[in-house]
Amino acid sequence: MMREAASSNPVLVDVFRGPRVESCHRGAIAISDIEGRLVLALGDVTRPIYPRSAVKVLQAIPLVESGAADALELSAAELAVACASHSGDRVHLDAVVSLLAKAGLDESYLACGAHWPASETMMRALIMEGKRPRPIHNNCSGKHAGMLAAAVHLGFDPRAYEKPDHPLQALIARILSKTCGVALDPTHMGIDGCSLPTFALPLGALARGFARLGTGVGLLPERARAGQRLMEACFAAPALVAGEGRFDTIVLRGLSGAAFTKGGAEGVHCAALPQLGLGIALKVDDGAKRGAERALSEVLAALLPKAWAVLTDELEGELQNWRGLLVGRMAASEELQGALRDFAGRRDRAATG
Amino acid sequence: MMREAASSNPVLVDVFRGPRVESCHRGAIAISDIEGRLVLALGDVTRPIYPRSAVKVLQAIPLVESGAADALELSAAELAVACASHSGDRVHLDAVVSLLAKAGLDESYLACGAHWPASETMMRALIMEGKRPRPIHNNCSGKHAGMLAAAVHLGFDPRAYEKPDHPLQALIARILSKTCGVALDPTHMGIDGCSLPTFALPLGALARGFARLGTGVGLLPERARAGQRLMEACFAAPALVAGEGRFDTIVLRGLSGAAFTKGGAEGVHCAALPQLGLGIALKVDDGAKRGAERALSEVLAALLPKAWAVLTDELEGELQNWRGLLVGRMAASEELQGALRDFAGRRDRAATG
Repeated sequence: MMREAASSNPVLVDVFRGPRVESCHRGAIAISDIEGRLVLALGDVTRPIYPRSAVKVLQAIPLVESGAADALELSAAELAVACASHSGDRVHLDAVVSLLAKAGLDESYLACGAHWPASETMMRALIMEGKRPRPIHNNCSGKHAGMLAAAVHLGFDPRAYEKPDHPLQALIARILSKTCGVALDPTHMGIDGCSLPTFALPLGALARGFARLGTGVGLLPERARAGQRLMEACFAAPALVAGEGRFDTIVLRGLSGAAFTKGGAEGVHCAALPQLGLGIALKVDDGAKRGAERALSEVLAALLPKAWAVLTDELEGELQNWRGLLVGRMAASEELQGALRDFAGRRDRAATG
Repeated sequence: MMREAASSNPVLVDVFRGPRVESCHRGAIAISDIEGRLVLALGDVTRPIYPRSAVKVLQAIPLVESGAADALELSAAELAVACASHSGDRVHLDAVVSLLAKAGLDESYLACGAHWPASETMMRALIMEGKRPRPIHNNCSGKHAGMLAAAVHLGFDPRAYEKPDHPLQALIARILSKTCGVALDPTHMGIDGCSLPTFALPLGALARGFARLGTGVGLLPERARAGQRLMEACFAAPALVAGEGRFDTIVLRGLSGAAFTKGGAEGVHCAALPQLGLGIALKVDDGAKRGAERALSEVLAALLPKAWAVLTDELEGELQNWRGLLVGRMAASEELQGALRDFAGRRDRAATG
């Protein structure tokens, strides 16, 4: 088991209760341009981290690049759900079913395992019908359906598509490596919650990958077009990528075209800002989603003036208790505020210099 | 808003995925004897932290000390649920209802707010009946019922019993202060998830309070007896204190008499080890329950040989994914392992010296 010397990343987010900090979230943030120049690096952005579901859009590239999306005439909803960590609502399940059907498959092929859907409506419906959740309710079922469709179109065996040595997973690993401009170390591989391989890579490389995804610069033309089409599908069908009330759906809807964001388990979040030519990758050390979403909100607000209006609730960070009383708030740490102020200052000087 | 200089507590727990550390949990641990001597102090044990539900047994002392428990002929289940963060199963709701009824009250008096119960059985039952959760389903409803019964017995108005200026809350604050041997700073008060006041105090003081609770030494005789009776009720009815499959229920059942443990929100856990005359208090900086329970398991295993058998699953720390594949494990950090080795070495030398 490998453990690097415990580098102490800075606190990114403080959680206040009453007058005092009750908890805090440490982590690291990289913002990169298309050349891989880090325009902001807070904490250790060189240590490889597992990106988990934050790279689903890159894992979906073969679905488009292979010609499967064209051949199967996939809709925006079907492409968006292939990039999704969804709530398991009816709209998500319908898109997964139709994506599988177009590929000549059904949900029995899904290797993602089952969990209760985040959607309370769907959970209630399952319980009322006396049913248990199935793999299609897994938040990753769209990604798996997209991989199955790509595998079939490429002439691969759709069985065992989730194994690291399946040719589709090998293709996805090459895409991840090429896009992020970093070699993937096979000893840095873990198995994800949904049983797919997840390769650890540095936040700096991930941020560069998202800068390239957003702009298409530095990618093969067909890969750039595939990434573009997937992001456009997510902007066109933002509810498919997460679900109503959830962070990525709010951002994709409110900052359509300006910020493509995607979260992953254990506090990872990535973003592409096509108009600025920048990519963002962050991870909260302890894996807390609340820390990652709060930190990314702060970064987006520093980079995109419109983000303030879209992410008002997130940025105010009010914490209510079970009776709705205001008991605390989440706030960017002084370290994060300082880093973003420095970054804004450098940008202003560069613009006027 | 106060934020002390970001003291960097050590990593207590590492979360591995495949070969690599994916996430980690920092925090601090205090182990104290009845005199307040810290026999182990890892991280910052002087900074005040909110103990949240970890001190429910101390908040329940007026229920016994006032004579209410005798007058109302409370059962072990009713006393245990007054110390509980329960799963909202039928057994918990029954105990809360009967405790309230003995005090001449009903669930309309509960000021804790409502949330869905952790119990899947009860959640399913509510959904099947088309109902929403009520305050009685809140994990804190037993504590609130116990406070209401104490307030009525003491001749206090049961309305507004949850407010910081209610005489019952003032009494509880004095008990907390006296037991832990530390003045409570009113500017260190927050409001808990269930709307009660929660006073920040140092882990060192909390650990001393639990050493005193466990032994009765240093407490007024009637307070020592009240604490003893509450702990005995929890050992007698361990399922009432949390719920089947949950950490505190497993410990209270498996280490009955040897370790009284109680967790609180945001990664706090306290324990009394009566036979060793020690108290333990720990907090994980980021608030993660998984980190707190893993760290406490490690401490208990170092102090109580029997804990190895009771907490085998927790100590093995295997992490499975949605298909049941083994994808990682949680482990004590080198820092925590080292501190516990040093502590064991000091004890052995003291025993043989």
